[in-house]
Amino acid sequence: MNLTVLKIGGRLIAEPQELAAVLDYFATLPLPAILVHGGGRDADRVLAATGHTPTMIGGRRITDAATLDVVTMVYAGKVNKTIVAELQKRGCNALGLSGADGNVVRAVKRPVGEIDYGYAGDVRAVDAALLKGLLGLSLTPVLCPITHDGQGQLLNTNADTIANETAKALAGAGYRVSLRYCFEHPGVLRAVGDPNSVIQKITPADYETLKAEGVINGGMIPKLDNAFAALAAGVDEVRIGSVAALRGGGGTAIRIGNS
Amino acid sequence: MNLTVLKIGGRLIAEPQELAAVLDYFATLPLPAILVHGGGRDADRVLAATGHTPTMIGGRRITDAATLDVVTMVYAGKVNKTIVAELQKRGCNALGLSGADGNVVRAVKRPVGEIDYGYAGDVRAVDAALLKGLLGLSLTPVLCPITHDGQGQLLNTNADTIANETAKALAGAGYRVSLRYCFEHPGVLRAVGDPNSVIQKITPADYETLKAEGVINGGMIPKLDNAFAALAAGVDEVRIGSVAALRGGGGTAIRIGNS
Repeated sequence: MNLTVLKIGGRLIAEPQELAAVLDYFATLPLPAILVHGGGRDADRVLAATGHTPTMIGGRRITDAATLDVVTMVYAGKVNKTIVAELQKRGCNALGLSGADGNVVRAVKRPVGEIDYGYAGDVRAVDAALLKGLLGLSLTPVLCPITHDGQGQLLNTNADTIANETAKALAGAGYRVSLRYCFEHPGVLRAVGDPNSVIQKITPADYETLKAEGVINGGMIPKLDNAFAALAAGVDEVRIGSVAALRGGGGTAIRIGNS
Repeated sequence: MNLTVLKIGGRLIAEPQELAAVLDYFATLPLPAILVHGGGRDADRVLAATGHTPTMIGGRRITDAATLDVVTMVYAGKVNKTIVAELQKRGCNALGLSGADGNVVRAVKRPVGEIDYGYAGDVRAVDAALLKGLLGLSLTPVLCPITHDGQGQLLNTNADTIANETAKALAGAGYRVSLRYCFEHPGVLRAVGDPNSVIQKITPADYETLKAEGVINGGMIPKLDNAFAALAAGVDEVRIGSVAALRGGGGTAIRIGNS
């Protein structure tokens, strides 16, 4: 059975109009479908209002105890429930989940190496059987980037990773999975800021060239590494693009074959 | 089939040790069971930290837009996910829900009368079929006091009412429901502050006498009104008491017959 995993990021969530557009799109996808969301910007606002300064190292948030409290409130509370209520309004029977709910995403606290990321979680297991059970009740899971370790500890987890691991787990459970990363650009761009420079398709060979040329860099590298890993693990397709691009069947397709 | 609905209130949630004790008790209840929680105190702390002053009229919170944001973050985010993670640690496969999730508790914004309660929700429907479906997946629902109106609006809703309406809906769906209100006292007390003055049983006739005597007053009145309504709607038993009292089969039993 076909299944779509759509991941939406922080910038889309921060703007009510952009969020409405992406939820309009998601609500029209054939079922079953699963939404995974991030949501960094509101957390910064609440951290600032409560007197905390967000600490980022290499684009990753350092999650101390106070930050974990705030991201749990914002991601699992406000962002997740706002999205669920908006999807319900659109006739989509959404059900919000953190990784702790039904033990759907089990993680481990990232080991302290050169950097101590604090309460950051690395995904260990996604329970595809539970997701299948929820889909069987005609529910549409909406996953937020908070997980747990099974010992009572909540953990802040990268939403791209959750989307990726969820797609892989469902591919392993027999679904034909389309994994779609929705962001503000129409696709992976050859020229920064030029929406007409979308790269239609990236194969592993293309990827090496694009990295060597510096076209692909920064935060796009873990995203594409994850995408190739998902394809290698049996996910059927990975596409990256804006709402409009994805809606039109476009964006950048990540491929491991020539199909 | 027997089913327990346990409601836990603000004071128990605010103290980690008391919360641990009530979750220890809940995790030992025979399945199926459903937990309903409130959680007012953390919301006040976050409102204060973000520069808001909580407004209460007649013991009820006035929910303006900023307050709704905060209670959604605290109740659906921090409190709900902390409880879910703690239950998972205890081997209970908890799944947190707001009323928007799976449309499980539909409400309407309270009409503006003499008082404008803001984004306060009055429960219209609890989806017993969905709860039955989740129980069928061996999940234990954990309901927070945030609901929605089906039109995208989240609403702040009284947790006692959610517990009560959930118990009634499940009784209507064929379960033999025990509804238990867990609070800091061993039961409804005849003498304020005297834990040895627990009233063992309250019938409708007792209730009228106790109200006339002033023994039952304030916030206990809507709780007992709800309890009698639940019994009238087919809920099998209602008990009110502390963790220790409920665990021992005690507390105050609300009865409509003499059984």
